[in-house]
Amino acid sequence: MSILDNPVTARSAAPVVDMARSPYAALRPVPVSAVQLQDSFWAPRLAINREVTLPAQLRQCEETGRIDNFRRASGKKQCDFQGIYFNDSDVYKWLEAASWSLATHPDPKLEAEVDAVIAEVAAAQDEDGYLNTYFTFERKPERWSNLKDLHEIYCAGHLIQAAVAHHRATGKTTLLDVARRLADCLDRTFGPEPGKRSGACGHEEAEMALVELYRETGEERYLRLARFMVDQRGQKPGLFGNSPYYQDHLPFVEQQEFTGHAVRHLYLACGATDIAAETDAPGYREALEALWENLTQKRMYVTGGAGSRYEGEAFGNDYELPNDRAYTETCAAIGSVMWNWRMLNLTGEARFADLMELTLYNAVLSGLSLDGTRYFYQNPLADRGKHRRQEWFGCACCPPNIARLLASLPGYFYSTSESGVHVHLYATGVANIALANGETVRLVQRTNYPWDGEIEILIEEAPTVPFELKLRIPGWAVGGSVEINGQEISDHGLSNEEGAGGWYARHVGWHRTWQAGDVIRLGLLIPVQRLGSHPHVQGNWGRVALQRGPLIYCFEQADNPDADVWDTILHPYVELHPEFVPDLLGGVTVLRGRAITFYYTDTDRLYGRIQEWQAPESLLSPVTVTAIPYYAWANREPGPMQVWMPIALPWQERDLC
Amino acid sequence: MSILDNPVTARSAAPVVDMARSPYAALRPVPVSAVQLQDSFWAPRLAINREVTLPAQLRQCEETGRIDNFRRASGKKQCDFQGIYFNDSDVYKWLEAASWSLATHPDPKLEAEVDAVIAEVAAAQDEDGYLNTYFTFERKPERWSNLKDLHEIYCAGHLIQAAVAHHRATGKTTLLDVARRLADCLDRTFGPEPGKRSGACGHEEAEMALVELYRETGEERYLRLARFMVDQRGQKPGLFGNSPYYQDHLPFVEQQEFTGHAVRHLYLACGATDIAAETDAPGYREALEALWENLTQKRMYVTGGAGSRYEGEAFGNDYELPNDRAYTETCAAIGSVMWNWRMLNLTGEARFADLMELTLYNAVLSGLSLDGTRYFYQNPLADRGKHRRQEWFGCACCPPNIARLLASLPGYFYSTSESGVHVHLYATGVANIALANGETVRLVQRTNYPWDGEIEILIEEAPTVPFELKLRIPGWAVGGSVEINGQEISDHGLSNEEGAGGWYARHVGWHRTWQAGDVIRLGLLIPVQRLGSHPHVQGNWGRVALQRGPLIYCFEQADNPDADVWDTILHPYVELHPEFVPDLLGGVTVLRGRAITFYYTDTDRLYGRIQEWQAPESLLSPVTVTAIPYYAWANREPGPMQVWMPIALPWQERDLC
Repeated sequence: MSILDNPVTARSAAPVVDMARSPYAALRPVPVSAVQLQDSFWAPRLAINREVTLPAQLRQCEETGRIDNFRRASGKKQCDFQGIYFNDSDVYKWLEAASWSLATHPDPKLEAEVDAVIAEVAAAQDEDGYLNTYFTFERKPERWSNLKDLHEIYCAGHLIQAAVAHHRATGKTTLLDVARRLADCLDRTFGPEPGKRSGACGHEEAEMALVELYRETGEERYLRLARFMVDQRGQKPGLFGNSPYYQDHLPFVEQQEFTGHAVRHLYLACGATDIAAETDAPGYREALEALWENLTQKRMYVTGGAGSRYEGEAFGNDYELPNDRAYTETCAAIGSVMWNWRMLNLTGEARFADLMELTLYNAVLSGLSLDGTRYFYQNPLADRGKHRRQEWFGCACCPPNIARLLASLPGYFYSTSESGVHVHLYATGVANIALANGETVRLVQRTNYPWDGEIEILIEEAPTVPFELKLRIPGWAVGGSVEINGQEISDHGLSNEEGAGGWYARHVGWHRTWQAGDVIRLGLLIPVQRLGSHPHVQGNWGRVALQRGPLIYCFEQADNPDADVWDTILHPYVELHPEFVPDLLGGVTVLRGRAITFYYTDTDRLYGRIQEWQAPESLLSPVTVTAIPYYAWANREPGPMQVWMPIALPWQERDLC
Repeated sequence: MSILDNPVTARSAAPVVDMARSPYAALRPVPVSAVQLQDSFWAPRLAINREVTLPAQLRQCEETGRIDNFRRASGKKQCDFQGIYFNDSDVYKWLEAASWSLATHPDPKLEAEVDAVIAEVAAAQDEDGYLNTYFTFERKPERWSNLKDLHEIYCAGHLIQAAVAHHRATGKTTLLDVARRLADCLDRTFGPEPGKRSGACGHEEAEMALVELYRETGEERYLRLARFMVDQRGQKPGLFGNSPYYQDHLPFVEQQEFTGHAVRHLYLACGATDIAAETDAPGYREALEALWENLTQKRMYVTGGAGSRYEGEAFGNDYELPNDRAYTETCAAIGSVMWNWRMLNLTGEARFADLMELTLYNAVLSGLSLDGTRYFYQNPLADRGKHRRQEWFGCACCPPNIARLLASLPGYFYSTSESGVHVHLYATGVANIALANGETVRLVQRTNYPWDGEIEILIEEAPTVPFELKLRIPGWAVGGSVEINGQEISDHGLSNEEGAGGWYARHVGWHRTWQAGDVIRLGLLIPVQRLGSHPHVQGNWGRVALQRGPLIYCFEQADNPDADVWDTILHPYVELHPEFVPDLLGGVTVLRGRAITFYYTDTDRLYGRIQEWQAPESLLSPVTVTAIPYYAWANREPGPMQVWMPIALPWQERDLC
C-alpha cells in the first residue's frame, strides 16, 4: 500500500520546510508523507516515538500543568500558572510532533488527542489574537514588556510551527487559524511602520516560524515581519544591550561567529536561511556561510553537537570543546539539523546533508534512550557514569523537540531539483516523489545503512521523461563502487581524492531516461577511521575518536570489564574490527580490538615528575576493548565513557602481545 | 633598626591568626610585625601594595559608593544604596589590608585614612549592634531573612577580621568595639539556646572571624557561635536545601570532598581548622584531612588554584580541571593559602607550608599585575590573549583580598613550637621571634629564593638556652646540602627518597645551643622539572607543565615570536635551561630551550583522519622557546599563553637539529 493513499495525507504536500516556491532555493523538500521508512534503524525508532514517546509526553504535559495553564487562561480551570513562563512551547512542540506523526501514520486516537489539545489552546486565545498563558490575568499588563527574557514571541513561534505542521499533515485549519490570529497580533505590534514598535524575541524561533506561515498562507506580511525581527539584532542601541548572548552584538549580516546561547543562534540561522530562500536579502548567504565555517571548523564537537558551556548554555571560544563538561544541548543539535536541512535545500550542496546526518546519528540521537522514555539535556563526550537520562525536566525543551524531529524525519531523506531527485539519507524504504514536471518517481531503497555502505536503489515507477538521480557520497567515504543495472560505472567520482576528511561530501548522479526496474548499487567503503582534532582543542591532544560511516563511537565501561575505559590507550596503528551484534543495544556494530591499559589510578596522584611516571611494565597490559556507537551509551548500568581515546605516547609505547 | 622599635607595633603580638594559646595547635604563628622582608621578590611587592594598591582601592571604594553606603546608613548622606548587597565587605577587607600594612610600616597618612573609614563604619552601626548598610531603611525588615543569598553574616565576618587586624596592628579598639557589638548582636540572634534561631551564612567567612574574635577578646561565646555555625551545615532539614553548592549536603565532619562554591568551602575549612585548634571537636581533623586529600589529589590545578567551573564559581568533579576555562578565582587561591596556614600551625606538618607556598607564588600572585593596579578574577592556565586583568570589578572581592594577604605576608614566614622555631618560607629579611620561654631569637635570611635554592640563615641574636631550628625542605627539592658554620652536615635528610613529587615536604632541624653568629647554609637543588598529571585530567593528557622551585612556568607569546605557543611541542627529553633576566617582568628566571613548532593552524581543519595528519617535514621546525613564571603572564601585549605544553607524540617525533 502506498502511503499516498492515506486519507489524512490526501493534501499530499507536507514538507518539513516548504521551499516549493522559494525563488532562491536550489532544492525543494519532499513531503514527510511521501517517504515510508521500513528499515531496522529508523523505522523502529519512529514507531517508539509514536507508541511510547508521544503518549508519555502528552501525559507529562497534563501532569505538570502545562495544559492546565491553557485551561486556566480560558477560564475553564481555577488554578495558579504552573511551571516556567515558556511552558506553552512544550505543548506546541508536542502538537507539532503529533502532527508530523499523523502525516505518516494516521491514528484516530492520536488525532482526537491533538484535536482536544488544540481546542484548549484555541480557547485560551484572546479576542485580539494574543496567546500566551503566562501573560494572563494579573500579568496581562506585562505583555511585550520583557522580550529579552520571557520567551513571549518564542512561544508564539512554536505555536505557528505546530499549526503549519498540523495543517500540512491533516489539512485542518483549527490550529492554523489560531496561529494566524496570533501572527496578526504580532504583526500589528511589531514592525518598522509608524505606530508599531521595534522588538524581537530574546530567544529566536519565531523568525523561521513566520516564514513558514508565509509559505502556508501566502501572506507576505509574515515574511516581512520575520525579516524585520532578524534585522533588529545588532542595531545601535541594541535591543538586548548588544549582548552576544542574544546575538545582538552585530547585525545578522555581519555575524561571523556563533556566540552566546547555542539554541538561539542556531534558530536565528534557521530563520535567516528561510529568509534567504525567499528574498534576495543582501549579505544573508555570506553570513550564513561564514557561520557554517565557524561552526564546523571552530566550535563543533565531533558528534555534531554544539554549545560548549554550561554557563549560558552557550557557545565557547574557538576550539573550546571540553569533553567531560560538554554542554551540547540536545536542542542545539536539533537546531543544527534544522539549519543544515535549510542550507542543503537553499544551496543544493551535500556538505550540509553530511553535517545534518552526522548530527542526527550522534548528537541528536544520544539525547534519547533506546526505549524512548528518557532524555539527555546535555550530551557530554566523556563521563564517569554520573550523567544519566531523565524522564522529564522542569525546563523540558529537549523531549518534545526530539519527538518532532523524529516524527518528521522521513521528510529529510530526499529533495527535488528542477532536473530530478537528490537522495540525502539512506535507509530501507519507499518514496513517492513528485518531480518538478508533475510526474512521480517511486524509489525503493534497500540497505543496512549505517552498519554497512551497500545501498541499492530501485526505480519502481519511473516518469516518462529523463531526470537526474543524484546520490549523496558522504565525506567519510574514502572510495567505493557504483553499478547501474549490474554494470560497473568507472567514472563515478567516488574516490575521495581531496582525501582530507572533513565534509567533502557531494552528490553524484546520472541524468537519463530511467526505466521502472532500474537498479543502482552504491558500494561505499566504510572503514573504521581514527579522527584527530585541531591541536588547539586542548582536551583532544594526544587522543583520537573513532568513526565508521556516519557514526561516532565511544568506549563505555559496560563493554569493557577488563579496564577502566578512561585508563585505556589505543595503539596508533593496531586495527579495531567491526562486528554486528544483533542483541546488543537494539543491534549495533561494535568495534573490537587490542589496546593497552594502565593502572595509574591505583596511585591516585594528581601531579608528579614525569620521569617518575614511566609506568613499570607490570602496570601496563594489553586488553581487548569494544567500542559502541556514541548514541547508544548510557542505556545500561552507569560507568565511565569516553569518545576521545588516548593514543600511545612514546614513554607508554609497548608492543601488544 | 629593628622593626620591633616601631611605636605602632609596640603591642608586639599581631599574628595573622593567633594560635598562641590554642590548646590543640602544634605551632604558634609569629606576629606580622616581627618579620621584615628585605628581599627583591616580596619586599617590592609589599611596597607596591602599600604605595599603589591600597590608595587605589580606597579611591575605588569612595568612587563606587562603597563608603557612601555607610554615610547613607548613618544619615550623613542622602543617596541610594550603591552596588551589590555585599559591598560592605570590600571596605572591611581594605581596612584589614591597611591595618596589616600599619603593623609593618607605620604611616600616619594611611592611619588617618583608616581612622576616617572606621569612623564612617562605626557611625553606621545601629544601637543594637547590627551593621550592614544594605539592610537599612526600607530593607530593615529584611534583616536575617535571606541568609542563603545575601551575605549578611559574611559581611559581619569581614568586619570582625578587619577589627581584629586593626586591634593587633595598632592596639586601637575603635573598630574592635564595633565588631564586638555586631558579634554580640549575632550571638543574641543565632545559637542553640531557647529564643535564638538556627542559621549560618550562605557564604562562610564569619566562622573563622568569630574564632579570632574569641582569641582577641577571650569571650568564649564567639567560639561557641562559630562552632554552632559550622555544625549547622548538613543538618536535616538543611538550612540551604542540603545543597552542596552551600556545603549544606552533609555535616561538616562528614564532608570528604570540596563541593560547590570554591571560596565558600575553603573559608568553611578555615573556620573549621580554627575551631579544631581551640576545641577537641570530634571528627574535625579527620574531615579536614580528607578534604585536603581531595583538594590536592583530585580538584586542584598545578598552580594551587582551586574551583574549576564558571557556573557557580565552583569546584568540579574529580579531575575536572580544564585549562582554558579554569575559573580558579583569586579569592579561592587566597582561601587555600589561609586554610593551609591554619593547617600548618594546627599540625606542624610541612606539606601544608608547601601547598601554601605553591598557591601563593602561582595561583594568588597571578591575580595581580606587576604594577599592582590590575586584577584577575579568574586565573586560567591557557588563554588566547583575551583574558586581561581589570582595574576593578562590580563584584570586587578579589582586589582587597589580595591586598590583605600581601600586607600580612611577613606573618606567614615562621612559626614557633614548644621547642623552637620553624622556618616555612624563604626570603631575605630579618625576624625577631619570641620563643616559648620568652627569650628572643633574631634570624637573618639571605637568599635569592625563588630564583635559586641557596639559603643562608644567620642567628644574629640567640637565646641563652638550647632551641630547635627547623627548616622546611620543599617537596620539589630532590636533594641538596646543609652546612652549619661552614661544616657540611651529612645526615641532613634532604635526599627526597620517596622521590615521587607531590608534597613530601618536611621540616628538618637541629636542636642545640645556638650562638649569635651561627650560620646555616641550605643548598636546595632546584632543577627544571616536567610534571605530568593524572590521566583522568582530560586536558592534560600528552602534556607537561614545567616547575622550578616553587614556581610553575608558562609559555607566553611575547617571549616566543617564532611560533604560536599553542602550536609548540616540547620534546620529552631535551632540556630547558634557567636564565635570570633582570630587566624582564621585574626580574625573572626564564627557561629557554629547543622545541618543535608545527603549522596545523594554517590548514584550520577541526577534525581529520589522523593518517592524513602526519604533518610533512616542511610543516615541522625546531624553535627556541622561552617560558616565564606563570604569575608574570599578561603583563605585556596580549597573546596566547599556556602552562600545559604538548610533548611529542610518535607521529610527530623528529630530531631537533
